[in-house]
Amino acid sequence: MTATLPVEMKPASVSTDRIPVAVLGATGSVGQRFIQLLENHPWFRLHEVVASERSAGKSYGEAADWRLESVLPYAASTLVVKELGAELESRLLFSGLDSSVAGEAEDDYANRGCAVISNSRNHRMDDDVPLLIPEINPDHLDAVEKQRQRRGGYIVTNPNCSVMGLAMALAPLERAFGVEKVQVTTMQAISGAGYAGVASYAILDNVIPFIGGGEEDKIEKEPRKILGKWDGTRHVDAPMTISAQVNRVPVIDGHLMTISVKLRANASIEDVRVAIESFSGEPQELGLPFAPKHPLHYISDPDRPQPRLDRDRERGMAVTVGRLRPCPILDLRMVALVHNTIRGAAGAAILNAELLKARGLL
Amino acid sequence: MTATLPVEMKPASVSTDRIPVAVLGATGSVGQRFIQLLENHPWFRLHEVVASERSAGKSYGEAADWRLESVLPYAASTLVVKELGAELESRLLFSGLDSSVAGEAEDDYANRGCAVISNSRNHRMDDDVPLLIPEINPDHLDAVEKQRQRRGGYIVTNPNCSVMGLAMALAPLERAFGVEKVQVTTMQAISGAGYAGVASYAILDNVIPFIGGGEEDKIEKEPRKILGKWDGTRHVDAPMTISAQVNRVPVIDGHLMTISVKLRANASIEDVRVAIESFSGEPQELGLPFAPKHPLHYISDPDRPQPRLDRDRERGMAVTVGRLRPCPILDLRMVALVHNTIRGAAGAAILNAELLKARGLL
Amino acid sequence: MTATLPVEMKPASVSTDRIPVAVLGATGSVGQRFIQLLENHPWFRLHEVVASERSAGKSYGEAADWRLESVLPYAASTLVVKELGAELESRLLFSGLDSSVAGEAEDDYANRGCAVISNSRNHRMDDDVPLLIPEINPDHLDAVEKQRQRRGGYIVTNPNCSVMGLAMALAPLERAFGVEKVQVTTMQAISGAGYAGVASYAILDNVIPFIGGGEEDKIEKEPRKILGKWDGTRHVDAPMTISAQVNRVPVIDGHLMTISVKLRANASIEDVRVAIESFSGEPQELGLPFAPKHPLHYISDPDRPQPRLDRDRERGMAVTVGRLRPCPILDLRMVALVHNTIRGAAGAAILNAELLKARGLL
Amino acid sequence: MTATLPVEMKPASVSTDRIPVAVLGATGSVGQRFIQLLENHPWFRLHEVVASERSAGKSYGEAADWRLESVLPYAASTLVVKELGAELESRLLFSGLDSSVAGEAEDDYANRGCAVISNSRNHRMDDDVPLLIPEINPDHLDAVEKQRQRRGGYIVTNPNCSVMGLAMALAPLERAFGVEKVQVTTMQAISGAGYAGVASYAILDNVIPFIGGGEEDKIEKEPRKILGKWDGTRHVDAPMTISAQVNRVPVIDGHLMTISVKLRANASIEDVRVAIESFSGEPQELGLPFAPKHPLHYISDPDRPQPRLDRDRERGMAVTVGRLRPCPILDLRMVALVHNTIRGAAGAAILNAELLKARGLL
Repeated sequence: MTATLPVEMKPASVSTDRIPVAVLGATGSVGQRFIQLLENHPWFRLHEVVASERSAGKSYGEAADWRLESVLPYAASTLVVKELGAELESRLLFSGLDSSVAGEAEDDYANRGCAVISNSRNHRMDDDVPLLIPEINPDHLDAVEKQRQRRGGYIVTNPNCSVMGLAMALAPLERAFGVEKVQVTTMQAISGAGYAGVASYAILDNVIPFIGGGEEDKIEKEPRKILGKWDGTRHVDAPMTISAQVNRVPVIDGHLMTISVKLRANASIEDVRVAIESFSGEPQELGLPFAPKHPLHYISDPDRPQPRLDRDRERGMAVTVGRLRPCPILDLRMVALVHNTIRGAAGAAILNAELLKARGLL
Repeated sequence: MTATLPVEMKPASVSTDRIPVAVLGATGSVGQRFIQLLENHPWFRLHEVVASERSAGKSYGEAADWRLESVLPYAASTLVVKELGAELESRLLFSGLDSSVAGEAEDDYANRGCAVISNSRNHRMDDDVPLLIPEINPDHLDAVEKQRQRRGGYIVTNPNCSVMGLAMALAPLERAFGVEKVQVTTMQAISGAGYAGVASYAILDNVIPFIGGGEEDKIEKEPRKILGKWDGTRHVDAPMTISAQVNRVPVIDGHLMTISVKLRANASIEDVRVAIESFSGEPQELGLPFAPKHPLHYISDPDRPQPRLDRDRERGMAVTVGRLRPCPILDLRMVALVHNTIRGAAGAAILNAELLKARGLL
Repeated sequence: MTATLPVEMKPASVSTDRIPVAVLGATGSVGQRFIQLLENHPWFRLHEVVASERSAGKSYGEAADWRLESVLPYAASTLVVKELGAELESRLLFSGLDSSVAGEAEDDYANRGCAVISNSRNHRMDDDVPLLIPEINPDHLDAVEKQRQRRGGYIVTNPNCSVMGLAMALAPLERAFGVEKVQVTTMQAISGAGYAGVASYAILDNVIPFIGGGEEDKIEKEPRKILGKWDGTRHVDAPMTISAQVNRVPVIDGHLMTISVKLRANASIEDVRVAIESFSGEPQELGLPFAPKHPLHYISDPDRPQPRLDRDRERGMAVTVGRLRPCPILDLRMVALVHNTIRGAAGAAILNAELLKARGLL
Repeated sequence: MTATLPVEMKPASVSTDRIPVAVLGATGSVGQRFIQLLENHPWFRLHEVVASERSAGKSYGEAADWRLESVLPYAASTLVVKELGAELESRLLFSGLDSSVAGEAEDDYANRGCAVISNSRNHRMDDDVPLLIPEINPDHLDAVEKQRQRRGGYIVTNPNCSVMGLAMALAPLERAFGVEKVQVTTMQAISGAGYAGVASYAILDNVIPFIGGGEEDKIEKEPRKILGKWDGTRHVDAPMTISAQVNRVPVIDGHLMTISVKLRANASIEDVRVAIESFSGEPQELGLPFAPKHPLHYISDPDRPQPRLDRDRERGMAVTVGRLRPCPILDLRMVALVHNTIRGAAGAAILNAELLKARGLL
């Protein structure tokens, strides 16, 4: 069902020198975010939408049960959905595919020479696939060369939505002091499970202390790859230990997490705060379109960050941190928040593509 | 507690030819919306913030417990709060005062020659005070002249938040066919009661079939004044009967309502739909900054409008209507939605002020 | 997944003179309520559980994804699920079948001589099938004889969950004064759609002004049959007109509704209140186990009934009414509440079966 | 506003040999739970209700804004509220007083010879005041003798609502293996803050990573006293370190927490599970009326316990534990849940009083 609206009835003028892109899994929840965020992107132009056989041949407006809080862009609504596996005109593909099909389909398109910027979990831990956060490990893009040698195209992935928040919060600490141990408990929004992922009967007036699909395992492993090194031939994990406990809470968007950290070097709370507040990276230097001015916002109010109040900072691309204080068991404690479907998913992938373009890798 | 953020730490450049305005009741929930919506307004510049004795003398950033999903504008945060009743430099005042104090204070400032654009209920039904919706009854502004004669300044009000949705949905029907009877049941968001107005223990997993302060009475009376006439010396109500039943629901923003209507003239459902879709008014003709392109959005999907998905259309300034169909008792039924704190409160007042300015009444 | 608990590990003593019963659709949401409510029932003993092919052959504890707020009864957990259509030992069947299969399956068992007490919508409007509310139309049970003549067994149905609240609230008015017109807007709990029926992403911070499956149509038709007559050969509808608008709200259990009524005879608000408070029927006279002492509770507090506070009155079997006051368009207005999965579903069916037993019809 | 209901209009028969008790702070949220839970208590009879000057002299039904999901007991509704500080006939007092007044008032009544069973935080850490959980440290009651010597009466306290869940989950581990370190993150229900404590605007679609009143500090300190020893003259803390991070979540009742523990002795996950499942204490031996059969319920389903599904086990008096598994940093992880207003507040106090009575200390 598409919400029709007179004001959107005329197509926006489309600059033809933008790079044409395709969205794989375009009707799903991550796919819809891609469609929404790519509207009016200065570098990329939505050119193709790809989904399962069931949607193929329909207009996107007809095929997608649009659920976002903004109106479906008219230009997107008129695109005819192509079937997954079809030959595409675009060479830059954003993948929001479900993990049940992403593995093979992404390999397939990469083997055909495409750049596949994926939000799916399937290839994140592949040895020559960067698990990229442009502010943290842009040098991991060197792995792309190795991939290209074997298959022509390549896959670049962004991390799990909770990992995005955790890795961003840990990155300045790892850089400045070294991180040895991390205890994290997440309180994750329902949108992380897709539109139909969490029944209202299951979550209203409730918290579910479990998320399927190996969520805790991802949170314990992915940050080690992200904060680790690409040594020229392979990824070497950062030597930290992470213990994760996850929960689903009745929040629409925004994964909140409590974190306790043991550092390798001595650092005062004030040192750590300065490291967080001054954290910046290549996207900020390059002024990439989706880059937040400040990737980390430190909030000093004692009851922040909060999902509803802070998830949309810098259009959902900034991670917020607060409540920095000593931990009686490890060294310090803090709270972090990430917009799981923007910075933690579609927005992350778009920023990854922007970095690839800026580095001449597209 | 103010959420501080590096990116906001430098004041925005302020064009000094904008009209300086004051916000009365600036620390409350409507007041905060005024502050938020006035940031970067092309015609008005926030110059003074006014609140109760408790806040007076503090900086606004210190006095206000900022609760909106955007960051408190830096320029506003540094203003020193003045006490209600103090002499003000601004001649244009936006009032988000609580009804317990608004009556006297607004009269007082109007008597001092100010234009008081009020969201409070106290003076809405005063005979020479316009209850203004610029798309519907801009001619009611003639009453301002009568007020000026008696007091120098004047008060202009916008309606109750639910009334805004109802009156907007009824206006094209009243114009084209005449409205005789209206049955309305509202499902109102918690923000309508102010930040602390509804306890979470009262509303989670619940609906409260009651709203204090004479809510049903307002919904039954205000639309009759709005849709009625200013005959040169007094307001004459539109001859319609309204029956309202109100409910509080666990929704953040957005008042939804089911409506049944008996018309005076025959009209098909299609006629009514065309009337709604083609509805437009003076703000659209004048291109006022806060005017939605289309004041009414008709959505044909069978399950719309919905508060979370549709409240933000045209930055919260459009009212959405759907589910138009026959009624077995009256003539037709429909569902309407209004963003209660934007179009139904602070945004309405700002649009009122824009009309006054465009008409040379400031 | 069954929550196991030591305290439940020994089977409760089972009186063997209770009537053995089967639950059709036992693993679904209505089926689970049947299992829960039948535990320790003085007259009926859960003997068989019936579900789809997928569950057949498993233990009930294994097959059912138990979601209620009480622990799965041990005796039920060990029953082996039979497949729908199988020969059953029980002659009294409670049906919580999905409407996609209920029509045929219930006919089938009735044709085999069983008494099928159904919560499904399929046969509600069949001419010789009682749409039974024991307090209102126990005489409709005469239709059972006609059914038995044609098929050996019979089907008895209870109404739609919202209709239960509406018909109960209208019954004393229809009896005493006659009801001519009814405007009703419902605010319905998510449990009415089954466990997975409403996605949390769809309903959190939201209201959906639509419910599929012909919900409004049922509310406009079923009460007319319930409040009508069985004239010895067929059902004759009560001559009233109902206009219904339905909404889904983020509430776990309890359908709330605003109602406006036009009566046929003159009656003061006080007359109506007395009629509601003194309403009683055959279940109360007979002292049926599931009968509430007072089928209607009138609450005089101005903000009641409320789903969370009032749905569990008399173990969920009483309907609550409040806010009785004049209507400027019809005659009077009120608010009613029904526990949709107890009085509006499984509890209603059990009360129906109790009446059948008390009348010697089993 | 009292919800009146015909069925409650005749007073229940009152056995006069039950011990008369008073509830201090009877109109507040904890006070209301006391009133609810004491109805039909076999040993105690509600005899006096005490509140602030504002309520004194009114009937309880008039003074209390009753908010629980059951109907206000008739007998309680007719009691006349006495003012805090007044001379009382009862010698056993349950205190649900706000901490702003509890300190002095409880001392005052204890000095007059009363047994004050308090849920307030003020005296919990006083050296001769037991911080009692009957299953864990019934021997701490020896401190009562010391109190009596200095003041005639005495105060006995129960812990903070989150501490109740944590201490209960840790007790079998401390007994069997010794506990060295504990990392805990809580997700606490809104009822923990009292009826008006958390505004719906603050918590809907949100999580607040902060709870005032020193919540984290209590969680880090109280368990050490509870699990420690009364050495005959003073309390000696258990030598464990606790790190707590607290959050408020949109849940009505039930505090959920993720816990990581380092033990002093080696123990397999299976050993720990057996210790939890076999945990029992004096209330179970004595068969105290409010004692759960099993104080700890271990649930093996991977996504439990959950607040809505598990908080009411054993009428809210059992603590549930699940997800026991190794921790890569400490030794093991688990999830625990406590009904914060029953086992974590009023129910805890009543169980404390039952133990006092069983031991002849009243």
